[in-house]
Amino acid sequence: MQAARLHAYTDDMSEALSIDEVDRPTPTEPGGVVVEIEGAGWCQTDNHVIEGMWTEYVPQELPMTLGHENAGRVAEVGESVTTVEVGDPVVCHPVMTCGTCRPCRQGEDMYCENVQFPGLTTDGGFAEFLLTNERAVVPLPDGVDTTDVAPHADAGITAYHAVKKATRELNPGDAAVVVGIGGLGHIGLQCLDAMSAADVVALDVKPEARDLAAELGADLTVDPTAEDVAAVVDDFTDGVGAHQVLDFVGADETTALAPDVLAQGGSHHVVGYGGHVHEPAQSLVDGEIAYRGTLVGRYAELQELVALVERGAVELRTTRYGLDEVNEVAERLEHGEIEGRAVIVP
Amino acid sequence: MQAARLHAYTDDMSEALSIDEVDRPTPTEPGGVVVEIEGAGWCQTDNHVIEGMWTEYVPQELPMTLGHENAGRVAEVGESVTTVEVGDPVVCHPVMTCGTCRPCRQGEDMYCENVQFPGLTTDGGFAEFLLTNERAVVPLPDGVDTTDVAPHADAGITAYHAVKKATRELNPGDAAVVVGIGGLGHIGLQCLDAMSAADVVALDVKPEARDLAAELGADLTVDPTAEDVAAVVDDFTDGVGAHQVLDFVGADETTALAPDVLAQGGSHHVVGYGGHVHEPAQSLVDGEIAYRGTLVGRYAELQELVALVERGAVELRTTRYGLDEVNEVAERLEHGEIEGRAVIVP
Amino acid sequence: MQAARLHAYTDDMSEALSIDEVDRPTPTEPGGVVVEIEGAGWCQTDNHVIEGMWTEYVPQELPMTLGHENAGRVAEVGESVTTVEVGDPVVCHPVMTCGTCRPCRQGEDMYCENVQFPGLTTDGGFAEFLLTNERAVVPLPDGVDTTDVAPHADAGITAYHAVKKATRELNPGDAAVVVGIGGLGHIGLQCLDAMSAADVVALDVKPEARDLAAELGADLTVDPTAEDVAAVVDDFTDGVGAHQVLDFVGADETTALAPDVLAQGGSHHVVGYGGHVHEPAQSLVDGEIAYRGTLVGRYAELQELVALVERGAVELRTTRYGLDEVNEVAERLEHGEIEGRAVIVP
Amino acid sequence: MQAARLHAYTDDMSEALSIDEVDRPTPTEPGGVVVEIEGAGWCQTDNHVIEGMWTEYVPQELPMTLGHENAGRVAEVGESVTTVEVGDPVVCHPVMTCGTCRPCRQGEDMYCENVQFPGLTTDGGFAEFLLTNERAVVPLPDGVDTTDVAPHADAGITAYHAVKKATRELNPGDAAVVVGIGGLGHIGLQCLDAMSAADVVALDVKPEARDLAAELGADLTVDPTAEDVAAVVDDFTDGVGAHQVLDFVGADETTALAPDVLAQGGSHHVVGYGGHVHEPAQSLVDGEIAYRGTLVGRYAELQELVALVERGAVELRTTRYGLDEVNEVAERLEHGEIEGRAVIVP
Repeated sequence: MQAARLHAYTDDMSEALSIDEVDRPTPTEPGGVVVEIEGAGWCQTDNHVIEGMWTEYVPQELPMTLGHENAGRVAEVGESVTTVEVGDPVVCHPVMTCGTCRPCRQGEDMYCENVQFPGLTTDGGFAEFLLTNERAVVPLPDGVDTTDVAPHADAGITAYHAVKKATRELNPGDAAVVVGIGGLGHIGLQCLDAMSAADVVALDVKPEARDLAAELGADLTVDPTAEDVAAVVDDFTDGVGAHQVLDFVGADETTALAPDVLAQGGSHHVVGYGGHVHEPAQSLVDGEIAYRGTLVGRYAELQELVALVERGAVELRTTRYGLDEVNEVAERLEHGEIEGRAVIVP
Repeated sequence: MQAARLHAYTDDMSEALSIDEVDRPTPTEPGGVVVEIEGAGWCQTDNHVIEGMWTEYVPQELPMTLGHENAGRVAEVGESVTTVEVGDPVVCHPVMTCGTCRPCRQGEDMYCENVQFPGLTTDGGFAEFLLTNERAVVPLPDGVDTTDVAPHADAGITAYHAVKKATRELNPGDAAVVVGIGGLGHIGLQCLDAMSAADVVALDVKPEARDLAAELGADLTVDPTAEDVAAVVDDFTDGVGAHQVLDFVGADETTALAPDVLAQGGSHHVVGYGGHVHEPAQSLVDGEIAYRGTLVGRYAELQELVALVERGAVELRTTRYGLDEVNEVAERLEHGEIEGRAVIVP
Repeated sequence: MQAARLHAYTDDMSEALSIDEVDRPTPTEPGGVVVEIEGAGWCQTDNHVIEGMWTEYVPQELPMTLGHENAGRVAEVGESVTTVEVGDPVVCHPVMTCGTCRPCRQGEDMYCENVQFPGLTTDGGFAEFLLTNERAVVPLPDGVDTTDVAPHADAGITAYHAVKKATRELNPGDAAVVVGIGGLGHIGLQCLDAMSAADVVALDVKPEARDLAAELGADLTVDPTAEDVAAVVDDFTDGVGAHQVLDFVGADETTALAPDVLAQGGSHHVVGYGGHVHEPAQSLVDGEIAYRGTLVGRYAELQELVALVERGAVELRTTRYGLDEVNEVAERLEHGEIEGRAVIVP
Repeated sequence: MQAARLHAYTDDMSEALSIDEVDRPTPTEPGGVVVEIEGAGWCQTDNHVIEGMWTEYVPQELPMTLGHENAGRVAEVGESVTTVEVGDPVVCHPVMTCGTCRPCRQGEDMYCENVQFPGLTTDGGFAEFLLTNERAVVPLPDGVDTTDVAPHADAGITAYHAVKKATRELNPGDAAVVVGIGGLGHIGLQCLDAMSAADVVALDVKPEARDLAAELGADLTVDPTAEDVAAVVDDFTDGVGAHQVLDFVGADETTALAPDVLAQGGSHHVVGYGGHVHEPAQSLVDGEIAYRGTLVGRYAELQELVALVERGAVELRTTRYGLDEVNEVAERLEHGEIEGRAVIVP
């Protein structure tokens, strides 16, 4: 089968991946599941993997097929699999977990002590077929398109997970700031709207992104290059500040917003990770604010997100590309030229 | 009456405060309460105020009497005061709140929109008498000494507040790391022991502090200048990491511990504020860790801490000094020569 | 001024209250506030008070003016009042609290140790003027009508409070059952819709109430006299059950639904209180279910509800009546003939 | 092998079970685990099963070997088992779960949609060998005796689970009431002491049980047949009431305590299930109190309890009996003549 593989870390996205002919995978364990890919979302993290940013965080062996936002149909199952059958439409939780370690027993899939992450530590879904396991596949209800849903496998669940944490602490009348209305942000915005009655301020440097934000329910949109964000938020909240910031960018200048825009006791959720958090400890103390990292989400949360999709509460803006167009996608994302989410259809 | 006052910001602790003769305060509002000070704890924050570190966070007008860890007996009350009477022993919550703004109505005293902070924004308790209000005084039960209890007014409540947040997320078998076993740390350690069944690792550069930690219930003590903290914690927790770090120092090198010592999903509570938080956003994301600032605590939490003191669950290590010794105390604290907590007895 | 007062407990609603001429109240304490009533909602609890059902729960002295859902304009303030001025439009939190007891300091207004409850323990708002205090009045934003908003003072905040507790435990894809789409239920339904993405089943014996439920966002409406509720919920939730039941009726037959309709770990929120909870302890254990009483709500929650109203997220169905029509209202409510909420306009 | 089996429901404990010769079990699935029993606790639930009280809650086929508090050594494992090996000492979580349904994925083992409950729905541990699965076994650390630890498999985890829920809402200075200091209660008391700084009132009709309570950390013990419990608690808490009741009895007269002994907002945790909850809905509303059923506990919680045992924080009072003494144990428990917990050693 064909697969888009990374052979060497590079900053040149135009020649990042090559299309190789490789063996079609088959279940190697009783719980294994092979999925015929019908959609695989391209994520900012794919660019980061290509640049080598993940080498110090996870073990990687090249060449490796990228792609961790996968959906399609079950093509083959291991002998102990009972919850899905060949032909079932599924979206894949990004990681394969063991199910027996303490974090797995607590429902914390991302903390699994024996985790495998297709597209990050094993072969991913920019290919015709993907090997994953039963614990990773979420069956899709009728009416949910397997290609359109693919980006929810990572972008969606990550945005949902961060928003869920934030909404647990948001009351009507509180304000939330969403930073970056791209692949994740436009999902997060819709989740926020569906799950809370907070007032939402959306920041983005691009006018089309701000228009999208307004369309998806933002109460106010701000161009951070043209306006003083702290002053705008202060005014919007009558001097109280925003209780939650959802930072889908994670650049130096976006994490620096926290002390100026947060209400006391508020949280800045770090989802994107382009830069650093750099603040005096005293700033965290004085406002009793928190910087909280957020890492993908639980399997059960992907089920919840699929329920939101089924209700029509979250719509993805996607554009489809062929497997041979992966490097073009990588380049366009690097230059901020992808609206919504790119989905590779092998 | 006599009061120890700051006339100019300085780094020279030997001449930080001067003993002035000033008017004894009297209630200026119906809810006002004047307390005859029987103990006023000296805090690291006093040194920070003297250095001018708080000028960009709060409004200050010099000269100002410092001292925000106050206890004593009620000397005079405003006309509307009903919960205390002249002669009652009390410990003072550090801030005077309005009681009507939304944060006050939510029990979030530290976020009061009309807050006054004696010793930080108005005259404090390094004096014979202090003006505060009814909403700030917590009556003391029999058997609690007003001098000994004074540091709980800020050091105690701050440590308690941070520990309470941490214990809500600690299960038996989880590990907590306490950084710095000084004025706050030795209280925090005892609160942790009383309120959780977590395994506790205590870090301090000073052998006497580590001895104190062991005596107060730490399961393991570590000298961070001699040992590799991350390796020790990794070994102590079978590779899982600590679920909560209580950082009573807040220096660059202590906040830098988080990504290496925390379990996934863990929190680093920033209580001390000597330095910066400086980490790649990716570190927060990869471990889903949080840096959470902590600011003093609620009035209701001071009541809870007094209940702990009454049970004998928290003992303060204090040394008493006269009002004329304040600058000596400031200097000794600067050089790390104060064990436990210094209390000024006017 | 005129006031509708209860002189003797009775089951005959046709002669429940009499219109008396009484003195206009004036602030008796520095924090007192007199409100000129522009709307006072009639509540099922008023009927219960008339029947004497509250005598064993709270101290009552007759004659007493009823009415605990009050809104209007500030007519007079005590000397220490700073947050409202004469002429300000306000909705009144139903209780007057002390602000200094521990529950008040925790934001738990309903648990105030010195609470007074106009309309239940002191004179209420079925009158031209009401005496309350500064801690009870929530200023209204422009565009919120003081008559229309009145029922939010108790019906609204009670429904909101229960729903807020429920939504903290509801995830997308979970189901909630709302029992009784009357005065409280039709508010609760809208709060649920605004604050969660749960699937909602609404029960009511009356077809108009079910129609209203469908209009306000219920995904399914059920007539409990015609259908087997447990079977319907089982089918609707694929055998899982509902995670939360909001019981605005509280009759024997509605509390009996819990073991049959709740998912394991679910809660049955008892808001209405017409009957009993009567279940084998084993039913609670087997399903790990809870019966959770709910009592009005916090002051801060009334602020949150006003924010929902201002967003247009919650609309009240009200009908206006004169002060001289109170007994007619009492009778019609007794016979289930009031749609939405009756508001007395003195 | 020998097994103590129930052939017919009966109220006569003297002939409840018979000792049969049956086949030794062997793993029937890849994840199966056979444990050689070294201890099997006898539980009040065993008496309830014998009486037929569980037939309407779970499917049961007689004859069935009882015993759901099992510990011992791994004797045989299925082919896919990786976390334990033959010879490992283990305590068994009472239920065998599937690991793939939504509740399992959320860590809610007791809500597993495909659950099997040895001793309740399949053959249990009053036998030489027990068939369970990998997801049910918790490896024991050195120094924990497999016979002594057995009752933690159900009594322990159930008490721990209830106490954990309670402690999340208990602050220092709050009071908790423990009802019944028997098999579960004496564990719950120790967990409460280890995990909170609440003041504890213990109720038991037997003087020896009250003595044990005092020894294990209760601040006050009460004989409910001799004293007015509500008055005692009111006095002990200065009129506030207890914030949490842990009811290990669940009889009509113990569930009836809630409205009289609980502080507003408090919870009555129903753990034992001998009788009914029967209260006016108004009682739940007026105090905003909750009756919360509690069902065993999560696998991860059994790990936490084992951590408590390893720390020496929880000691079980056990008496050992042979397999041939099961009916004597059943009778003695029926008459309240078992102190602490009876453990069957086959």
